[in-house]
Amino acid sequence: MVEETLERYLPVETEWPPKLHEAMLYSIRAGGKRLRPILTLAACEALGAPKERALPVAAALEMIHTYSLIHDDLPAMDDDALRRGKPTNHTVFGEAIAILAGDALLTEAFRLMARKRHPDVEAKVLIEVMEAIADAAGSKGMAGGQVMDLESEKKKISLADLERLHRNKTGRLIRVSVESGARLGGGSAGEIETLGLYGEKIGLAFQIADDVLDIEGGEEIGKDVGSDLANEKATYPSLMGVQASKDLASKLAEEAVDLLKSFDSKADPLREMARFVVKRRS
Amino acid sequence: MVEETLERYLPVETEWPPKLHEAMLYSIRAGGKRLRPILTLAACEALGAPKERALPVAAALEMIHTYSLIHDDLPAMDDDALRRGKPTNHTVFGEAIAILAGDALLTEAFRLMARKRHPDVEAKVLIEVMEAIADAAGSKGMAGGQVMDLESEKKKISLADLERLHRNKTGRLIRVSVESGARLGGGSAGEIETLGLYGEKIGLAFQIADDVLDIEGGEEIGKDVGSDLANEKATYPSLMGVQASKDLASKLAEEAVDLLKSFDSKADPLREMARFVVKRRS
Repeated sequence: MVEETLERYLPVETEWPPKLHEAMLYSIRAGGKRLRPILTLAACEALGAPKERALPVAAALEMIHTYSLIHDDLPAMDDDALRRGKPTNHTVFGEAIAILAGDALLTEAFRLMARKRHPDVEAKVLIEVMEAIADAAGSKGMAGGQVMDLESEKKKISLADLERLHRNKTGRLIRVSVESGARLGGGSAGEIETLGLYGEKIGLAFQIADDVLDIEGGEEIGKDVGSDLANEKATYPSLMGVQASKDLASKLAEEAVDLLKSFDSKADPLREMARFVVKRRS
Repeated sequence: MVEETLERYLPVETEWPPKLHEAMLYSIRAGGKRLRPILTLAACEALGAPKERALPVAAALEMIHTYSLIHDDLPAMDDDALRRGKPTNHTVFGEAIAILAGDALLTEAFRLMARKRHPDVEAKVLIEVMEAIADAAGSKGMAGGQVMDLESEKKKISLADLERLHRNKTGRLIRVSVESGARLGGGSAGEIETLGLYGEKIGLAFQIADDVLDIEGGEEIGKDVGSDLANEKATYPSLMGVQASKDLASKLAEEAVDLLKSFDSKADPLREMARFVVKRRS
């Protein structure tokens, strides 16, 4: 459903300017787990609302995530040649187009949310959703987390700093993905807060699992195994050991599931997602 | 008013992460004519509405413009060391922070529009404004225009292509600045369209005047005089000569003023702006 929505709402390659649209679609089509949009749809469903209501926002969140990956991979940032097993955007299209493809995906995300408001979503609610997403993606969220990441390279950082880094760089957008679904699904302030906490916990669990995969993962994770080690990056395993990291990720996932106690079986997809983020092999 | 609004709504440097906020503020404070926000406020006033109603959107438009300048100046793009007479963002803060400062300004622009909706602006109207701005700034607007600009470097292009380039790279955002003010000011569909055409004409006039300034301007324009020539960039003067370029810019400005015929003296600031864009010396 997410794949189909992304294709439907993104410009096609033949539209002017083709090279830019090609680059945007290349990274969107490079795959990935679609974690954020799935969480948005699952949260909307957990509240008993049809997930169609959250589709444009879900797709927009994947576009924002994809823009951040394109920019993070740039030579001036992490300088990565591979992403999801494929050459990174700038490797294929050049740096200038990669920068612009990221810019355009970010812009397109806001355009999509604004132009495809579902008739059952009040304009005021959509504006709240857009504000929360911009807040999570901005200088005090995801972009700030990337600054912190750049500044911590080849430096010893504490576990508290590492957690802060991840909470901003990836956690905030994952949390807001869940919250947005809850808001679009008509959740009460309490439900939005509870689901937000669920999102925060699985966001952190996801990142810890990612660090473990970097050490243990096979080629299927699509980037060089051990690349964090090579880059002297602080990770959970490097700070607390592999087993303790795995235990922490599992504990966070369990806590996330516990938060869903007051929700009925419509929240089962959210429960499954909590288990998936720590059990995945790629 | 615009300066004060930008300072009020942007994060301060001391907020985490300080380096990123410093970089964002550096480029915002580097000055500039504030053409886009002034046009937004003037269009709102032309319709008899208080300009305060359009202030957050006006400030957001300047943030979007500033993000585009930071990214355009990057080594992978135009590789400019000076902008408005000051070292460019990446020269001062490094490429990585400059990319992120641009990203964060773009994100912040949407956040600002969403979180500071004026009570007299309906939520639906604000969403329309945000959509139109995202459309003008995105892949089929400003970002697309920058791709075209990169592709036309050191190439002979026709006058029609040059006009298309400018219409997208700078024209769309200038036009939507006027349209946004008109929409926020409660304009009718006809008034929004007329003011949009006014914006389109002065946007093009502005760009032609810019090309002329690059040849004739003194140091006050803040970049090296003759830099377009040095970069072998197609410009209006290079394609049609200096005098014909000046004549065309004046003609467009006059046509823009003519479009305002049905508006009363409240549109005088818009009339003055049309004259300013072709008469300015920097």
